[in-house]
Amino acid sequence: MKTYLDCIPCFFRQALEGSRIVGATPKQQKRIVDEFARQIPRISLEASPPEIARIGYKLLRNVSANRDPYYAIKQKSNRIALRLLGRLKHKVNSSKESLLTAVELAIAGNIIDFGVKNSLNIKAELKKILAEENRVIHKRSIFHYGEFRQSLRKADNILYLADNAGEAVFDRVLIEEIKKKYPDKNLYYAVKEKPVINDALLEDAKACGIDKAARVISNGTDAPGTILALCSKEFKQVYKIADMVISKGQGNFESLSNEKRPIFFLFMVKCPVIAGETGCKIGSIVLFHNLKQNGALREKNIQMAFYGKRA
Amino acid sequence: MKTYLDCIPCFFRQALEGSRIVGATPKQQKRIVDEFARQIPRISLEASPPEIARIGYKLLRNVSANRDPYYAIKQKSNRIALRLLGRLKHKVNSSKESLLTAVELAIAGNIIDFGVKNSLNIKAELKKILAEENRVIHKRSIFHYGEFRQSLRKADNILYLADNAGEAVFDRVLIEEIKKKYPDKNLYYAVKEKPVINDALLEDAKACGIDKAARVISNGTDAPGTILALCSKEFKQVYKIADMVISKGQGNFESLSNEKRPIFFLFMVKCPVIAGETGCKIGSIVLFHNLKQNGALREKNIQMAFYGKRA
Repeated sequence: MKTYLDCIPCFFRQALEGSRIVGATPKQQKRIVDEFARQIPRISLEASPPEIARIGYKLLRNVSANRDPYYAIKQKSNRIALRLLGRLKHKVNSSKESLLTAVELAIAGNIIDFGVKNSLNIKAELKKILAEENRVIHKRSIFHYGEFRQSLRKADNILYLADNAGEAVFDRVLIEEIKKKYPDKNLYYAVKEKPVINDALLEDAKACGIDKAARVISNGTDAPGTILALCSKEFKQVYKIADMVISKGQGNFESLSNEKRPIFFLFMVKCPVIAGETGCKIGSIVLFHNLKQNGALREKNIQMAFYGKRA
Repeated sequence: MKTYLDCIPCFFRQALEGSRIVGATPKQQKRIVDEFARQIPRISLEASPPEIARIGYKLLRNVSANRDPYYAIKQKSNRIALRLLGRLKHKVNSSKESLLTAVELAIAGNIIDFGVKNSLNIKAELKKILAEENRVIHKRSIFHYGEFRQSLRKADNILYLADNAGEAVFDRVLIEEIKKKYPDKNLYYAVKEKPVINDALLEDAKACGIDKAARVISNGTDAPGTILALCSKEFKQVYKIADMVISKGQGNFESLSNEKRPIFFLFMVKCPVIAGETGCKIGSIVLFHNLKQNGALREKNIQMAFYGKRA
């Protein structure tokens, strides 16, 4: 996906919020905003949003002595999510459609995202998500579950692209459900190599217990998404052999939505641009197969009225 | 009031929305955003938000052949508001505290503002505002009504600073109520000299019938607020002789809140920065006397936690 002009005010907001989280002084905050502003005229909107956001996160790293300013936040997310694990597993195990429930929960876990809204009250949000009425949300959204199930049955090598720390517990629930149904599949769980916002690292995947069900690998980058051009050779080899890719979160969707290979994007719609891009409301959970011929998204991409006015 | 770093993402959003309203092509929109970004590092946050926003509106004028792109919007606002006039007058005339009701309505009329949210559904919003339950809103807000009434009684020359077209009808209701109570006061109603967003011009004041109750003057500028350094000599003379200033809207508050002379600011809180500055919730109506010694605002200005971290 390319970047919309509407993303630019949001980049500034993220840079500013991020600068406060890394503990920048007001003067440093101003310098970050100024430096980001200087970059804007040089930026091509042909780049995906995570490619541009990465510039902002680099500026944050320059002012912060702390190489991982979101460390405490990630630890807390892992802890909170792990406390929910029993309830999540019970929900899946007692469901008549356990795989579907696990998919829904994995997407719901995408609420754990400080890049979009740092003050998110995880506990309250998750409580809402776990409420029964949310079972119906996907009916009004894009939800290619039939294709997902079919693809899962056929695939030998499955690559699962992680998004945030904490959220990894929800991924674990889905991965364990897949393993239970299909014990012979090779499952890879790809995290970021170096810290960027609250994205999951190797240590988070382990803390969340993913390593027991999947082979945890790194994508070799510190980008808030999966920018293939920056990824390690090792990661790209797995990406190549995988006959099914499960991609979590908006960042991965934004950076991979134009890929020609089949990918299932699981994410929660968190901003008006993605709402415009997908035709789904903010807050809805999406399971989108990018190669589905009659995909609602494909049509909507053309029809987009407001956000379609790209520069 | 000085500018907060948090205003910067909002300036970009306004520039982008404005560029669409003036009919800029996507390429022109990108150029406006780029040019505005180039200005950011040169901007001092010591300037008030309207001084900075003015840079963006200048860029819009450069791409727009139309000198008054909000003309149709202003005309529509005037028409919609005029249709409400009978109801507004009835509300005041049937009130036990007619002046208080007129003040509340004048502030409520501040909802008509395309600078903050261009898609505002005026009719629906006004319906809500005119509902009875809103009588209680100001109780939870800053509302220096006692001082306002007292000042009104004593003043000979009253200067009323207009904000938006359409809103002028609501101002008329208050001005007529003042005239009814105090027929001998000299009342001046100051509008902008040249078009800027949907701010009221001489023609709007006349269309809304203000000219029958007050002397309509121009402030000599096209700034989205009252930037005294830019105002005409004529305006500044009136400003100087006025023994009471009634200032409408956030823009006038942002540009005049540091003035040492007594001003009553009547506005609706429309953004998180002003909510932080005033300690009032977004959507609340504020009647704030800047020289009130025990002013809640004065204290809050010092205590401000989040937004207080200025660069």
